[in-house]
Amino acid sequence: MPNRTVFFVSDGTGITAETFGNSIMAQFPAKHRHIRRPFIDTQEKAEHVVKEINQLALQEGQRPIVFLTLAKNDVRDLLSEQCNALVLDMFRTFVEPIEIELGVKSNHRVGRFSDVAKSQEYHDRIEAINFSLAHDDGQSARNLAEADVILVGVSRCGKTPTSLYLAMQHGIKAANCPLIPEDFERDSLPTMLKPHKRKCFGLTIDADRLSQIRNERRPGSKYAALENCRAEINEAERMMKREGIAWLSSTHKSIEEIATTILRDIRPDRLIY
Amino acid sequence: MPNRTVFFVSDGTGITAETFGNSIMAQFPAKHRHIRRPFIDTQEKAEHVVKEINQLALQEGQRPIVFLTLAKNDVRDLLSEQCNALVLDMFRTFVEPIEIELGVKSNHRVGRFSDVAKSQEYHDRIEAINFSLAHDDGQSARNLAEADVILVGVSRCGKTPTSLYLAMQHGIKAANCPLIPEDFERDSLPTMLKPHKRKCFGLTIDADRLSQIRNERRPGSKYAALENCRAEINEAERMMKREGIAWLSSTHKSIEEIATTILRDIRPDRLIY
Repeated sequence: MPNRTVFFVSDGTGITAETFGNSIMAQFPAKHRHIRRPFIDTQEKAEHVVKEINQLALQEGQRPIVFLTLAKNDVRDLLSEQCNALVLDMFRTFVEPIEIELGVKSNHRVGRFSDVAKSQEYHDRIEAINFSLAHDDGQSARNLAEADVILVGVSRCGKTPTSLYLAMQHGIKAANCPLIPEDFERDSLPTMLKPHKRKCFGLTIDADRLSQIRNERRPGSKYAALENCRAEINEAERMMKREGIAWLSSTHKSIEEIATTILRDIRPDRLIY
Repeated sequence: MPNRTVFFVSDGTGITAETFGNSIMAQFPAKHRHIRRPFIDTQEKAEHVVKEINQLALQEGQRPIVFLTLAKNDVRDLLSEQCNALVLDMFRTFVEPIEIELGVKSNHRVGRFSDVAKSQEYHDRIEAINFSLAHDDGQSARNLAEADVILVGVSRCGKTPTSLYLAMQHGIKAANCPLIPEDFERDSLPTMLKPHKRKCFGLTIDADRLSQIRNERRPGSKYAALENCRAEINEAERMMKREGIAWLSSTHKSIEEIATTILRDIRPDRLIY
């Protein structure tokens, strides 16, 4: 199968559409070249993109695939009609059946994120990012009562990227706190966690994988040794079990999958932004 | 217009589909209730969701809107056929025309992120997040040569969330470094930035907005005073201009819009993950 060039044309950032379009193209084996054309919000800019697409179609001897997310009718029509390409209109395809269902017209708002910078929702997301950063790696017990969730687990099991993802994508105030050898010696949760146990969520990981990750950081260290990893993980799991903290393994999961599972438990119907 | 309940049913996390679906629902004025049902990958789970949807349709006296992203045919058919709802199949709608265009069948891969946790691409993203964290707020000059971009600007102009977003969403190693009063007194860029000037990208912001943001942090401080904000911003813009650093204003832009603009400049055809 010949590889096609895939265009994402949007009048906003096009990020949402491109991420979704990528998951569709991932259903096909070939490696496609992706070209993003954001902020296409006038006829003039649209004409420029049409020219680019048609030139490429000629050059490559096959038509590109073009994903559109354009709210404005004139810009959209120009691209749908004049491109020598398979044009997939991501907006109209779904907006029209919903218009019929609801019996109202859509408002043709340009871009998911326009005006968003001043909204409460956006403000909360930025606050959540700041909160998660300030409460990364058990840095601060201050305001921990405000946390929506506190991720716990041994060092390098995936707490930090998951916390930041929860904050950035979902506006969740996610703190994280490591379980370290000193905690296991004292045989007790870190003191800062005790008042917030019901908000804790555990991450664990296979010892092999943890050792591999730690070796990238500190090659050949005791910290990274397989035996040490195994011992820490056993202690951590024992402690979480005893304290009634639910946990999941990050070994074969992406941060998106971990975050979705956590959300399902703590806020099943939480809106995504 | 009566509000509808909107379901997102996926055999993976459903995050991509839900984010995209939200941008479609945002075209309609009402505030819809969203319910996410991730990891629906068996007929049994699908039957459970069908029951839930149909009960809700009865209860509310109107049919819900259901967005599906399901790769497996049996699960998908069950939901499309048995739900008393407006069912929008986000996958089939676009996958089928592409199959025809390319002359091949799609591989019906479940979930965009399955198997992703072990891929190079995913590894690079996690590396980028770690890099951006380690190089937040000018913390470290170490390995700065590895940065894809270094955001500069006065304190609280939006550098940190933008850096983390670039890392998390695009796998970009984004450092950031503040321009502070001491730099303006010396009338010189921070020393750590000098060898990397061509990778620097500036953020600026309106003085009113900056003062407002800083006042949330340190109410009534000199740091937050409008006059002080105005002076710092003037100095920073003057310095960036002199050093030939491109910049944009974050005042009315979301981090997504800022990131997209930066990407367009530094890597126009960068793949999104």
